[in-house]
Amino acid sequence: MSVKPGAGATTEICTFDADNILIRGKNLVDELIGQYSFTELFLLQALGSEPTELQSRIVDAVMVTIMEHGLVPSAIATRLTHYGAPESFQGAVAAGLLGVGDRYAGTAGECGAILERIVAAPEAERSATALAEVRAYRETRRPVPGFGHPIHHEQDRRVPRLVGFAEQAGAVGEHIAAMHHLESALAEVLGRRLVTNISAAIAAVLGEAGVPASLMRGIVLTARCAGLVGHLFEEMSNPAGHDLWVGAQKGVATPS
Amino acid sequence: MSVKPGAGATTEICTFDADNILIRGKNLVDELIGQYSFTELFLLQALGSEPTELQSRIVDAVMVTIMEHGLVPSAIATRLTHYGAPESFQGAVAAGLLGVGDRYAGTAGECGAILERIVAAPEAERSATALAEVRAYRETRRPVPGFGHPIHHEQDRRVPRLVGFAEQAGAVGEHIAAMHHLESALAEVLGRRLVTNISAAIAAVLGEAGVPASLMRGIVLTARCAGLVGHLFEEMSNPAGHDLWVGAQKGVATPS
Amino acid sequence: MSVKPGAGATTEICTFDADNILIRGKNLVDELIGQYSFTELFLLQALGSEPTELQSRIVDAVMVTIMEHGLVPSAIATRLTHYGAPESFQGAVAAGLLGVGDRYAGTAGECGAILERIVAAPEAERSATALAEVRAYRETRRPVPGFGHPIHHEQDRRVPRLVGFAEQAGAVGEHIAAMHHLESALAEVLGRRLVTNISAAIAAVLGEAGVPASLMRGIVLTARCAGLVGHLFEEMSNPAGHDLWVGAQKGVATPS
Amino acid sequence: MSVKPGAGATTEICTFDADNILIRGKNLVDELIGQYSFTELFLLQALGSEPTELQSRIVDAVMVTIMEHGLVPSAIATRLTHYGAPESFQGAVAAGLLGVGDRYAGTAGECGAILERIVAAPEAERSATALAEVRAYRETRRPVPGFGHPIHHEQDRRVPRLVGFAEQAGAVGEHIAAMHHLESALAEVLGRRLVTNISAAIAAVLGEAGVPASLMRGIVLTARCAGLVGHLFEEMSNPAGHDLWVGAQKGVATPS
Repeated sequence: MSVKPGAGATTEICTFDADNILIRGKNLVDELIGQYSFTELFLLQALGSEPTELQSRIVDAVMVTIMEHGLVPSAIATRLTHYGAPESFQGAVAAGLLGVGDRYAGTAGECGAILERIVAAPEAERSATALAEVRAYRETRRPVPGFGHPIHHEQDRRVPRLVGFAEQAGAVGEHIAAMHHLESALAEVLGRRLVTNISAAIAAVLGEAGVPASLMRGIVLTARCAGLVGHLFEEMSNPAGHDLWVGAQKGVATPS
Repeated sequence: MSVKPGAGATTEICTFDADNILIRGKNLVDELIGQYSFTELFLLQALGSEPTELQSRIVDAVMVTIMEHGLVPSAIATRLTHYGAPESFQGAVAAGLLGVGDRYAGTAGECGAILERIVAAPEAERSATALAEVRAYRETRRPVPGFGHPIHHEQDRRVPRLVGFAEQAGAVGEHIAAMHHLESALAEVLGRRLVTNISAAIAAVLGEAGVPASLMRGIVLTARCAGLVGHLFEEMSNPAGHDLWVGAQKGVATPS
Repeated sequence: MSVKPGAGATTEICTFDADNILIRGKNLVDELIGQYSFTELFLLQALGSEPTELQSRIVDAVMVTIMEHGLVPSAIATRLTHYGAPESFQGAVAAGLLGVGDRYAGTAGECGAILERIVAAPEAERSATALAEVRAYRETRRPVPGFGHPIHHEQDRRVPRLVGFAEQAGAVGEHIAAMHHLESALAEVLGRRLVTNISAAIAAVLGEAGVPASLMRGIVLTARCAGLVGHLFEEMSNPAGHDLWVGAQKGVATPS
Repeated sequence: MSVKPGAGATTEICTFDADNILIRGKNLVDELIGQYSFTELFLLQALGSEPTELQSRIVDAVMVTIMEHGLVPSAIATRLTHYGAPESFQGAVAAGLLGVGDRYAGTAGECGAILERIVAAPEAERSATALAEVRAYRETRRPVPGFGHPIHHEQDRRVPRLVGFAEQAGAVGEHIAAMHHLESALAEVLGRRLVTNISAAIAAVLGEAGVPASLMRGIVLTARCAGLVGHLFEEMSNPAGHDLWVGAQKGVATPS
């Protein structure tokens, strides 16, 4: 066969031999197990630098916030997949994760990218940058990510809680301020306030933790993975798959 | 890093260079496109031998039989996944395929393996072999794959149609006879007849086509892939995802 | 729980009861099994109208063209997944399909959408429309889908073969002509010719078959599903997973 | 359509309305965010009871242990999937998770089930129970899960580290003792010692934490999800996909 030859790719994450596993240069056995929390190692592995206490507290709180939200579509997909394929635990979890996409959970990263661009501007220009961002979305008829919610119309109580937690933990507040700039810009353009949803709050506090927008969906996915595992574990002993199927069918009319 | 060195693995399916793609030794451009049907190439690629007309007619009929069955759990999983992740067509299809497992669609392969063991016995012993197979399943409290159906209690009309088609197409009938041995053995052991479901019929006719049991699930998957594509295509212009979600939720009681 | 109530969703694809399965109004047992080919039923199920011979011949030829291309990344992903999870046939196939995305196989649909826009213009303006399309892509620094190939630099022999097949089968040629407009526009803007790759040809001939661009990726996925099934079937009896792993590791330098 | 009517399915995990989300009866905003760690909420959500400090310390240490192991097959599958489908973060992660199956990471749960059966026996009979378990595996020619490793032939240093950590954290030691019974039984039957691998250690310490065997794979999956996220994040800025592909291809001979 013939494809372009390899171009000297590298990875900086991990190396191992028969005796040792080194993650970002630290020995798993001697330096990590029992000394780093799961969240701390997640940050070290992904970002390559020692996590600060602020970072690990915020990322941990975000994962607590987003882990579980009842019988959402991804949890239903996991349970229905198990109903047909009980032999594959990982298949059922993967099916649920495949729905953690642009529409809900994936919006944190997109909102985070907007906040990054606002924070990158000089402070005096951030309000105007937010307005320009909102207008660019409106012109291309895309919804501004992080605003509006199908259930929590008035206020999503998770938002002030998560933001307040980050502030108490010591966040300097630039990304949170950027989120407020975005709220104001959106209200100005729309002529009414849309509820700030949890994706915007996640984007803001993860920005405070120095998590790049392009990593945010990965943090959401990991938290949701845990949540889907819990649903699947319940499904294995107290199955709801059949009733989810019957109920879903009733929601849709077929040709008469 | 260090892992065991490679051991000289090979593949016989395909080779290519900048000018040619050879599948099982045949040139894709000069010998396959326009000359082999999809089903014929599927057989050639997977089995490595020239498909007979009997093989391709039976495999094609099986895929027609199993492609579509309405809003089954896998179709719902595909639509719910698209609801959350509209950016990934393949993700929604993959989510649906993950549920094509042991419980329904995957049973054809397991039944096919039983039929292969019955056919491997001398003709005079096939009835006894079928009885021994059924008893082995009963002793380990596993359901015999291919029998019983949640919807078609009396008869699954697809079964005689598919079997009849294979017979008319020229099947010699050994695997079909093995299926009937299995039906009789099951009725004898249970004291009543269970409906023969479509998985048993698929196993029997694919056995007639010389398709090994270990490949049968792959044929079911490919047919279901096409069916899920159709559901996803409808979902994109006439979405049912939200209503499937609402309906599914109604089917399950949450903590009060 | 509370979500927005269902809004009267419908599906037109299939309905069933204990005795019958109707796909697009046709009885599976009485009208489809043995009378429609797999490709014909795929078209009927997805598009909802009786497939013409031109449609089914072109779609079938496209699936033959794209089913198999050796140890491409998706086939490797399928085999590596089986290496770790031999219990789940469908999981290994799904892992491979997840990589059939925007970069290679998914480009047919995007190119098809461009061709649709060109064909939607009056004939005298199609050349100018193609030029405008190319310029819009260049301005946003996106590659025009369907052109350039990592392996087939000079010419992809599949392209004239597939297009020629469609023409012989009776295609009227509007989408094929649109593809040629796009080739010329791209050459004019770039100052050199890029090879027309198989995605453009698929887009053109599927357009001739009346397949909407938004369905094209689904046809590619189904064909690739069959190809991945064949790789997995070989992997089960002649495993390459370990050697693929060892080889892949050698391609990437780890921290010293 | 007609399927069996729903049978009164329930879920105990979560309920929500427009104002509140309750997970296992606790209010997410008022009682969980900022007060439970990710690992604690994972335990609460899945098991339905308040996690002890021992439980959360052990589960956290297990997830640290198993999160990352370099360019293993699942990490390669994630990177190859991104190479073909850069549009879907979750698709690339899901593809990697699909390979976290029976062969490596999934063995913890199977080993855990054996340890549960040993611990369920009266203390004086546990050694004999372990021997019976090993013999049952040998008779059916299945490898005893948790023993032997392709890389760490002599000793896997993670094993004593993780077990020692659990003991220091206050584990009572019944499942760890069961693991040692299993080691001895295996050595007796085989006539030589096989290395105890990390899956056995995970099974033992998670057993000490009161995690049922049927949940163990879910903990491994969640940890691996984080690890795959890190690989994907690196891949997005420092791609290795092409070189992994080229390297993998070199590992396998194609037809000449």
